[in-house]
Amino acid sequence: MLADSTVKSQLFHILQPYGSNNQVGRWFDWFLIVLIIANVIAVMAETVPNIKLEYAQFLLWFEVVSVSIFTLEYVARVWVCVLEEECQFKGKGYFMYRIRYMLRPMSIVDLLAILPFYLGVFVSVDLRVLRLLRLTRMLKLGRYSQSMQTLNRVIANEYRVLIAALAFLMMIMVLAATGMYYLERHAQPESFGSIPQALWWSVITLSTVGYGDVTPITTAGRFFSALFILMGVALFALPAGILASSFTEQMSQRRDKFRLSVLDMLTTGQLTLTQLDELEHIRKKLGLDREEAELLFNSLRKQQESAEQKSTGKHCPTCNQPIIAGEETQSKPSK
Amino acid sequence: MLADSTVKSQLFHILQPYGSNNQVGRWFDWFLIVLIIANVIAVMAETVPNIKLEYAQFLLWFEVVSVSIFTLEYVARVWVCVLEEECQFKGKGYFMYRIRYMLRPMSIVDLLAILPFYLGVFVSVDLRVLRLLRLTRMLKLGRYSQSMQTLNRVIANEYRVLIAALAFLMMIMVLAATGMYYLERHAQPESFGSIPQALWWSVITLSTVGYGDVTPITTAGRFFSALFILMGVALFALPAGILASSFTEQMSQRRDKFRLSVLDMLTTGQLTLTQLDELEHIRKKLGLDREEAELLFNSLRKQQESAEQKSTGKHCPTCNQPIIAGEETQSKPSK
Amino acid sequence: MLADSTVKSQLFHILQPYGSNNQVGRWFDWFLIVLIIANVIAVMAETVPNIKLEYAQFLLWFEVVSVSIFTLEYVARVWVCVLEEECQFKGKGYFMYRIRYMLRPMSIVDLLAILPFYLGVFVSVDLRVLRLLRLTRMLKLGRYSQSMQTLNRVIANEYRVLIAALAFLMMIMVLAATGMYYLERHAQPESFGSIPQALWWSVITLSTVGYGDVTPITTAGRFFSALFILMGVALFALPAGILASSFTEQMSQRRDKFRLSVLDMLTTGQLTLTQLDELEHIRKKLGLDREEAELLFNSLRKQQESAEQKSTGKHCPTCNQPIIAGEETQSKPSK
Amino acid sequence: MLADSTVKSQLFHILQPYGSNNQVGRWFDWFLIVLIIANVIAVMAETVPNIKLEYAQFLLWFEVVSVSIFTLEYVARVWVCVLEEECQFKGKGYFMYRIRYMLRPMSIVDLLAILPFYLGVFVSVDLRVLRLLRLTRMLKLGRYSQSMQTLNRVIANEYRVLIAALAFLMMIMVLAATGMYYLERHAQPESFGSIPQALWWSVITLSTVGYGDVTPITTAGRFFSALFILMGVALFALPAGILASSFTEQMSQRRDKFRLSVLDMLTTGQLTLTQLDELEHIRKKLGLDREEAELLFNSLRKQQESAEQKSTGKHCPTCNQPIIAGEETQSKPSK
Repeated sequence: MLADSTVKSQLFHILQPYGSNNQVGRWFDWFLIVLIIANVIAVMAETVPNIKLEYAQFLLWFEVVSVSIFTLEYVARVWVCVLEEECQFKGKGYFMYRIRYMLRPMSIVDLLAILPFYLGVFVSVDLRVLRLLRLTRMLKLGRYSQSMQTLNRVIANEYRVLIAALAFLMMIMVLAATGMYYLERHAQPESFGSIPQALWWSVITLSTVGYGDVTPITTAGRFFSALFILMGVALFALPAGILASSFTEQMSQRRDKFRLSVLDMLTTGQLTLTQLDELEHIRKKLGLDREEAELLFNSLRKQQESAEQKSTGKHCPTCNQPIIAGEETQSKPSK
Repeated sequence: MLADSTVKSQLFHILQPYGSNNQVGRWFDWFLIVLIIANVIAVMAETVPNIKLEYAQFLLWFEVVSVSIFTLEYVARVWVCVLEEECQFKGKGYFMYRIRYMLRPMSIVDLLAILPFYLGVFVSVDLRVLRLLRLTRMLKLGRYSQSMQTLNRVIANEYRVLIAALAFLMMIMVLAATGMYYLERHAQPESFGSIPQALWWSVITLSTVGYGDVTPITTAGRFFSALFILMGVALFALPAGILASSFTEQMSQRRDKFRLSVLDMLTTGQLTLTQLDELEHIRKKLGLDREEAELLFNSLRKQQESAEQKSTGKHCPTCNQPIIAGEETQSKPSK
Repeated sequence: MLADSTVKSQLFHILQPYGSNNQVGRWFDWFLIVLIIANVIAVMAETVPNIKLEYAQFLLWFEVVSVSIFTLEYVARVWVCVLEEECQFKGKGYFMYRIRYMLRPMSIVDLLAILPFYLGVFVSVDLRVLRLLRLTRMLKLGRYSQSMQTLNRVIANEYRVLIAALAFLMMIMVLAATGMYYLERHAQPESFGSIPQALWWSVITLSTVGYGDVTPITTAGRFFSALFILMGVALFALPAGILASSFTEQMSQRRDKFRLSVLDMLTTGQLTLTQLDELEHIRKKLGLDREEAELLFNSLRKQQESAEQKSTGKHCPTCNQPIIAGEETQSKPSK
Repeated sequence: MLADSTVKSQLFHILQPYGSNNQVGRWFDWFLIVLIIANVIAVMAETVPNIKLEYAQFLLWFEVVSVSIFTLEYVARVWVCVLEEECQFKGKGYFMYRIRYMLRPMSIVDLLAILPFYLGVFVSVDLRVLRLLRLTRMLKLGRYSQSMQTLNRVIANEYRVLIAALAFLMMIMVLAATGMYYLERHAQPESFGSIPQALWWSVITLSTVGYGDVTPITTAGRFFSALFILMGVALFALPAGILASSFTEQMSQRRDKFRLSVLDMLTTGQLTLTQLDELEHIRKKLGLDREEAELLFNSLRKQQESAEQKSTGKHCPTCNQPIIAGEETQSKPSK
C-alpha cells in the first residue's frame, strides 16, 4: 500500500491490528490492551465493599474516560473501515460497507463494550446486569492475538466432535447419577435423594474436580463409582486431547502451506515486491505470526541458496533427478 | 436414487439419518432427538419427590405418547429396511433381511427403548428397574452423530491398548493400596483397615478426583503417596491421550482417503453422476460429515482447475515430472 | 515349525504365549490369567478381618494349590526353553541356555511369584512382608499383553524426557512450597510450618488431586497458589501427553514397518511359506497383535491384487511412472 | 580436538557437560548433581525446627563447603571458557569473551548460586530472603539434561499459544466468578462476597484441583458451575496437550534432520573423521542425546549397507528409479 498522509488513511494504519508496521499503531494496540485489562479489574474491584466505598469517585471517572476512548475507537473504526478493500466499494457504496462492517463479530463486541454505559445513562436498567455486561470488554482482546483466533477456529472446526464427546459424557454422567441414586439414596437422602441431585456428584467426580462435599459412603456405591471413575475420566479428558492434537496439526499445516508458497516463489529467482505482498497476504490468511513467518521465510531462502550453490539445475526433493527447467512447480497436495 | 412416490419409499427416505437430502427426514430427526432428550429429563425429574407428586399425571401421559411414537418408529424402520440394499434380497428374502436388521445393535437399542414399557404393562416387574431401563433411550441418539460413531469406533479399535493401560493402572493401584495399608492402618484403621478399603483411596487419589474423605496423615504415608501420585497420575491420563491421538489420526486418514478418491475421479475430467454417487457412498463408509466432505471436494476441484490452467499435462506432485497421459492413478498407500 | 508329538515339544507349544496357534495353549493362558487375578484378590481379601477369620482354611488351601501350579509352570518353562532357538545350542549347551533363560526379567518374575511361599515354609520371615511379595504375581500378567509390553517399551524409550519433566516438576513444587511456607506459616503453622510440610500441599495441589486437607487461607497465599496452579498444572499433565503421543507414533511406525515388509514380499508374486514365517517373525519383533497384523496383511493383498488388475507393471506410488520390472524395492526410510 | 595436557585444557574438558568423552568430567558432573540436590534438601530441612536445632552446626559447615565448591567451579568455568571457540578470540580478546560468557543465562545462574552467601557475609540482609535465593542452585541442574533444555525450548517456541490459552482461561474464569458472585453471594457471603473472592473458586474448580473449601450450595449455582466445568476443564487441559504434541513433533523433526545429515554423508561411501566431527556438532545443535544418536546412526549405516548389497546403484526411495551416480543428495525439505 502506498503511504498517504490524510488523517483517514493514517488512522486506518494505526487502527489495524498487527500486520501493519505502523509504530504508532503498535503503541495504540498496547494502550488499548492495558485499558481493557484495567477495565476488567475495575469491574471486579467494584464488587469488593471496601474498595467500592473508598474509590467510588475514581471508579466512576475511570468508567467515563474508558467509555469515551472506546466510543472514539468504535467511531473511528467504522469511519476508516472503507479503506480496507478499496477496490470493491467506491462513493455511495461506503454506507453499505460500513453497515456490513458493523455486523462483523468483532464490531459487535466493540459496540457491546460501550452500549451498557449509554443504556445506564439514558434508560433505567438494573445496574447489576449492566456491570456484568461491562465484562464483554474482555472480548475486545481477541483482536490482538493471532493464536487466540486460531484457537477459536480450532474449536469451531472441531465443534461436531466436541458436541459428540459432550453427548457421550452426558450419557455417562446420567448413567452414573442413576446408579448412585439407587445405591446411595437410603444412606444419604440429602445428597442422592433424586437423580438431578446425584448429577451434581457425577459432574464433580467425572471432571476430577472432586470437591468432596458429596461422596459415596456405602461399599456398593464406592465400588460403582470407582468403575465409573476409571471409565469416565478418560472420556472427560478426551475433548482437551482432541483440541490439542487438532491445534498442533492445524498449525503445522499452515506452516507447510506458507512454506510451499515461499518455495514456489523462490524457484523463479529473486522475489519481486508484488510477490512479497502476496506472501504477506497469504501469511495473514493463514493466521501465522509475522515473526514466525519471517523465520520460516529466511530459513527457506538460505536453504534455497545453498542448494543453488551445489547444483545449478532444480531437482526433485525425493529422488534428486534433475527437473526440466521452465517447468513450474505444481501445488503439492497438502498432507 | 430415483424419486418414487410410494408410502414405503417415502418413509424410507424420511427415516434414513443424514446422508439423505430429505427435508422432512431432517425435521423428523430433530423431532426424535428432542423427544429422546425430553424422555431422559422426564425419567430424571420423576425421581424428585415434589415433581413426582405434582406432575405424575403429565409424566404418565408423556410416557405413553413417547412410547407410542418410538413403537411406530421401530415398526416403520423394520418395515422399510428392505429398501436398503434392494439389489440383494427380493420377495421372500424380505423376512430374513428384516430379522437380520432387527439384530443390528441400533435396532436392539430401538427395541430396548420401548420394551420396558410393555413389560411394565403386561408383566409385573419392579418398577424401579424399569425406570432405569428407560434411560437406554439415550442410546438412540447414537444414530444421529457421525462423530459419536467415530468415537465409538476409535474406542473399539484401541480397546487392546486401553485394557493394557487399565491393567497397568490396576497394578499400580493395588500396589499403592497395599503400601498405604501397611503405613496408615494403625493411624487410621477406619479408612485403611484392609487393602480393599485402601483401594478406595487409590482410585480417588490416582484419578486426581481427590475428594479428601480419606487422606494419609502419617509422614511415611504422605511421602509414599506423593511418590505414587507423581508416577500414577501420568499413567491415569494415558488412556485419554491415546484415545485423542488415535481419534485425530483416524479423522485425518479418512480425510486423506476421501481426498484420494476425489482426486482419482477428477483426473479423468468432468465427474459423471455415477462417480458422484460413488463418492457419496465412500463418504458415508468413511463416516465423514456431508458438510466437511463438500468443503474438501470443492477445494480439490479448485486446485485441480488451477493446476490445469498452469500446464495441460499431469505432473508427479513430488518430482514434478510430466506423467504420461491416460495412466490411471494407482491407489497411494495410506500413510 | 513342524508338528512333533513328544511331550517336551507339546509342552513348549502350550507354554508359548500367543503367537502359537495351539488351542490348548490358549486355554492354558486364560487359566493362568484367571489364577493370577484370583491370587491378587485373595491377598487383598486376606487383609479384611472378617474374611480372614471365616475363610482362613480356604485361603491357605488356595495358596498351596496356586503355588504348586506356578511351580510346575516355572519348572516346565525352564525345561522346554531350550527348544526356543534350537539352532544355537545343542547338547551340553542346554544348561547354559537354561541359566540364561532363568535370568530373563519374565523368568525372575515367575520365580518371585513362588519364592515367598517357600521362604515362609523353610525360613522364619515376617509374614506380612511375604504377603506383600505375593503381589509380585501380578507381574506375571505382563506376559499376556502385547500392548502392555509396548507401553513398557514406550516408557523405557522416553525415560529421559520423563525424568526431565519430573525434575522440572520437582523444581516448581519446591518453589511453590517455599513461597507458601513464607506466606502461610504464620496463619497455619500446623500445615505450612516448614518447607517439607508445605511440599505435601505442593504435590496434592499441582497434581490436581486437591484433597482439601491443606489449603491456603491468606489472600497472599491464595493469589500465589493460583499463579502456581495456572503454571504447574500444564507441566504436571506433560508426561502423560508425551507418553500418549509417543505411544501413538510408535504404534503407527510399527504398522508402517510391517506394511512395508508385506508389500516387499507381495511384489514378487505369491508368498512362499518361508516368507510367511519371516513375516510372522517380523510381526512378533514389532510387537504387533496377530489379529491386527492379519487385517493389515489382507487389506494390502487385496489392494495389490486390484492394482495388478489395473495395470500389469509396477508404478511409483507418488508419480505413477512405470518402474522397470525386476528391480527390487529398496527399503524406504521410515518416516 | 587434539589431546593436550595443560591444566587449563584438561579442566576445560572436565567442565564440559556431556558431549565430551572425558571420564573424569562425567564423575564431576554426577558429583555436582548430587551436591546441588543435597543443597536443596538442606535448605528445605533447615526450615524444620527440630532439624535446625540439632544440625545447625553441620548445616552451616555444609553451606560453607558447598559455596566453596560452587565458587571454584564458577571461577574455573570463566577461566577456561576462552577455549570454547579458540578460533575467534586470541590474546586480548579473552577478557571480552569472558565478560560475554558471564552474561549467558547459565553463567548468571552459576553466579546466583553463590552470591547470596557472600551477600550474607559482607552485607547485612534479611536472612530469610537469602535462604530463598539459595534455592536458585536448583537451576544449575539445567545444564545436565538435554531433554530439560528441549522442554525449555518447546515452552519458549509455543509461548504465544500458551499466553493465548491462558488469556482464554482468564476470561472464562472471570466470567465464571462473576456468575457465581451473582448466584451465590447471598447464600455464602463469606466465600462469594466479591468477584475477586469468587475467582479463587474459579481457579480451584476449573483447574480440577477442587479443594472443596469453597463449593456452590444453591441449585442455580450448582447448575451454573456444572456448565462451566464441562466447558472450562477442556480449555484448562489444552496448554498441556499443546506442549506435549509440540514436544513430540519437535523431537521427531530433530531425529529426521539428524537422519538426513547421516544419510547425506553415508552416500559418499566411508565416513571421514571430519564428517564424524561434523555429525557430532549437528547432534549437539539439535539437542539429541548421544546414546540416541548412536542408535540412529548405526541403524542407518546397517540399512545403507544392506541396500548396497541389493543393488549397486542408488534409487529414489519413493519411485525406485535408479539415480545417476555422482549426484549429491539435495537437502530434503523437512516435513
